[in-house]
Amino acid sequence: MAIWRLSGREFNRRIDELKRILVKRKLDAAYLTSLESIFYFTEFAYIPTERPAAFIIPVDGEITYMGPIIEQDHIQSRTKLVTSIKVYRDYPGLIHPMDLFAQWLSEMGLNKKALGFDLLSSEGIWGYKGAPISQKLPNARFESIKDSIDEMRMFKSDEEIVLAKESAKWGNLAHTLLQEYTEPGLYDWEVSLKAVLEASRAMKRTLGSDYYPIGPRGREPVTAGFRGQVGPYAAFPHVMACPNPIRVGDVVVTGAGADVGGVGSELERTMVVGEPTEKQARFFNIMVEAQDAALELYRPGIKLSEIDKAVIAVFKKHDVLQYERHHTGHGLGSGIGHYPGHHPPFVDQGEEFIIQPRMSFSCEPGLFIPRFGGFRHADHIIITEDGSERITYYPRDIESLTIHCRK
Amino acid sequence: MAIWRLSGREFNRRIDELKRILVKRKLDAAYLTSLESIFYFTEFAYIPTERPAAFIIPVDGEITYMGPIIEQDHIQSRTKLVTSIKVYRDYPGLIHPMDLFAQWLSEMGLNKKALGFDLLSSEGIWGYKGAPISQKLPNARFESIKDSIDEMRMFKSDEEIVLAKESAKWGNLAHTLLQEYTEPGLYDWEVSLKAVLEASRAMKRTLGSDYYPIGPRGREPVTAGFRGQVGPYAAFPHVMACPNPIRVGDVVVTGAGADVGGVGSELERTMVVGEPTEKQARFFNIMVEAQDAALELYRPGIKLSEIDKAVIAVFKKHDVLQYERHHTGHGLGSGIGHYPGHHPPFVDQGEEFIIQPRMSFSCEPGLFIPRFGGFRHADHIIITEDGSERITYYPRDIESLTIHCRK
Repeated sequence: MAIWRLSGREFNRRIDELKRILVKRKLDAAYLTSLESIFYFTEFAYIPTERPAAFIIPVDGEITYMGPIIEQDHIQSRTKLVTSIKVYRDYPGLIHPMDLFAQWLSEMGLNKKALGFDLLSSEGIWGYKGAPISQKLPNARFESIKDSIDEMRMFKSDEEIVLAKESAKWGNLAHTLLQEYTEPGLYDWEVSLKAVLEASRAMKRTLGSDYYPIGPRGREPVTAGFRGQVGPYAAFPHVMACPNPIRVGDVVVTGAGADVGGVGSELERTMVVGEPTEKQARFFNIMVEAQDAALELYRPGIKLSEIDKAVIAVFKKHDVLQYERHHTGHGLGSGIGHYPGHHPPFVDQGEEFIIQPRMSFSCEPGLFIPRFGGFRHADHIIITEDGSERITYYPRDIESLTIHCRK
Repeated sequence: MAIWRLSGREFNRRIDELKRILVKRKLDAAYLTSLESIFYFTEFAYIPTERPAAFIIPVDGEITYMGPIIEQDHIQSRTKLVTSIKVYRDYPGLIHPMDLFAQWLSEMGLNKKALGFDLLSSEGIWGYKGAPISQKLPNARFESIKDSIDEMRMFKSDEEIVLAKESAKWGNLAHTLLQEYTEPGLYDWEVSLKAVLEASRAMKRTLGSDYYPIGPRGREPVTAGFRGQVGPYAAFPHVMACPNPIRVGDVVVTGAGADVGGVGSELERTMVVGEPTEKQARFFNIMVEAQDAALELYRPGIKLSEIDKAVIAVFKKHDVLQYERHHTGHGLGSGIGHYPGHHPPFVDQGEEFIIQPRMSFSCEPGLFIPRFGGFRHADHIIITEDGSERITYYPRDIESLTIHCRK
């Protein structure tokens, strides 16, 4: 494989596994409509709109795209796996797309067969309206295979792990620049745009002329920024934007990642602008202590709930549990894009799932103090045979993450 | 109102109208879960995750947030309209959130009442699993009010129109810089990041210290870029990323917008890098002719299908219909973010909806020639009492959109 994308062999392996699942469940074809499933099996990433689209992967027969013509040429340029293409002009059109889908599935001989789906309805997306395909094909049997697909995606292949590590390297570089460019007086997005530009240039030059971000939101090779978490706004985990510039005395929470063949990585850090106060250092160090307690437990055989409970215990010990705003982490997806996304299972006190090798999780306990700031690092963990690897190796200590300001 | 956000009066007007709809339909409360509805009625924009959240707007009683604690402080900082907040720690948690929602709705006296919803299930979003709330409250009646909300949003208030025009101004500026910075040898994202940085600085300085982008994907005030539509990649309307730098002889397709109080605008242009060839000029001018034919028809009393058919007629006349990849346009939403989004009704040959004053549409017929390039302008149209206004006043002619290169 190229250093920056999954090989054809990888996609064929996934498709073969899906077909084995279909056969085992006595199904004739998969009917896939979610962006994640489609990318996972075909390497095709796109922007879903109100126009319904579905990919059919039969046990025997051609992989087929049914959807709007807007993606026709795009699919053909991106994947050789989809060999049959059936398109309509646009939605709503003169004939409802779901009636065309029913007709095409009949022509494929699937109208009286058993189909495994991931998501059946696009109802409501960008204003789409329509009955699900199951109502159009009353003689077909529809059965959800979402759990099977989710389970496949939980376990990372060697190739996925190589790409996630490559992504983490560029995320680390982007974060180095983000930290270097952070200074009082600048808006968070000014720092972010400068770091993204420089890190993207370095990544593109290194990975070569064929490289480009293939996640559906593509654009730049890397992401790096603050999501608005600056000063008091850092107390809101998902604030996304802040009206103030960065100031001396602020705590900021960052994030950086890169798209390597649609695979991402998750790195977040808390930084202090100027010398940390005692109060800032206290919250920072409790957060690191909680993350340390969690990191030690990411290994095969441990229940996910145990990790979250270990974090809760650290916060309780220091009497700061009231500042917690979310659980310890989440499963990391197989793509798509700069960030690998939230996926089950979750690192949550209510999750009894037992960790197994080749799984991947975020580790990101946080403290969020209203009108003061937020404290969270997020790391990307890959489970090995007997432990785990933290692929986001950026430093986590307060000295390394202090922005020294000119007097 | 501030120049950059909707007033409290505007949100109260919307809530009052929603309550009138509820009363008319004999419903006791609205149960809202979609990002768009929630922002439309409360000015709260957030990133939905696997954690379910719902906003309750009762005919009588407090507007209530039920959801994860991760958004608790964020809501309180952003809106005064939501006065009751009920939170759970995280998903999946020790008790399923939907059981808590059922309990809280019972405490609010709504468990045997009639509730109007926009979207009932979050099933599948980022790995969430759970029965819809309707199954947890068998004695309540649930009825979709999505059509009513969609209809409300179709018609723009004076304030929304002011903000859309303000957004278009900054989109025009961002595009001016994008065009100025476009040159052979640069990657599309290099040009984009430079233009976004400069235009965002100008916008922030002008709108003042309180301004920030409040759409859920916030970050920078403006967006401007190519979405990968460079050279042959311009033939894919939603390609998002391109491996090549910009080259002399390329056609590129751009886009620019700005977030003004969560309201956006839609501007896209086709530019030619270097002197246009005869073939490029031919496709460019047919596209402009089709857009002209459409623009003339955006006025009250016209069926949307007539506009799309006028475009098809122009493409047929020039024998280029085989290069069309989508219909003429779509309704533009009331927020949220840099781009106003696709919304019904669509400017499509199958759409018999009759245009009325205060509606808003994109006008964006395009031609996409495989291995050659794409040709599309998109403009943001607001319907007036007797015609329409194109608020994206950036030039559309080929001379204005040619990038003159140094020899």
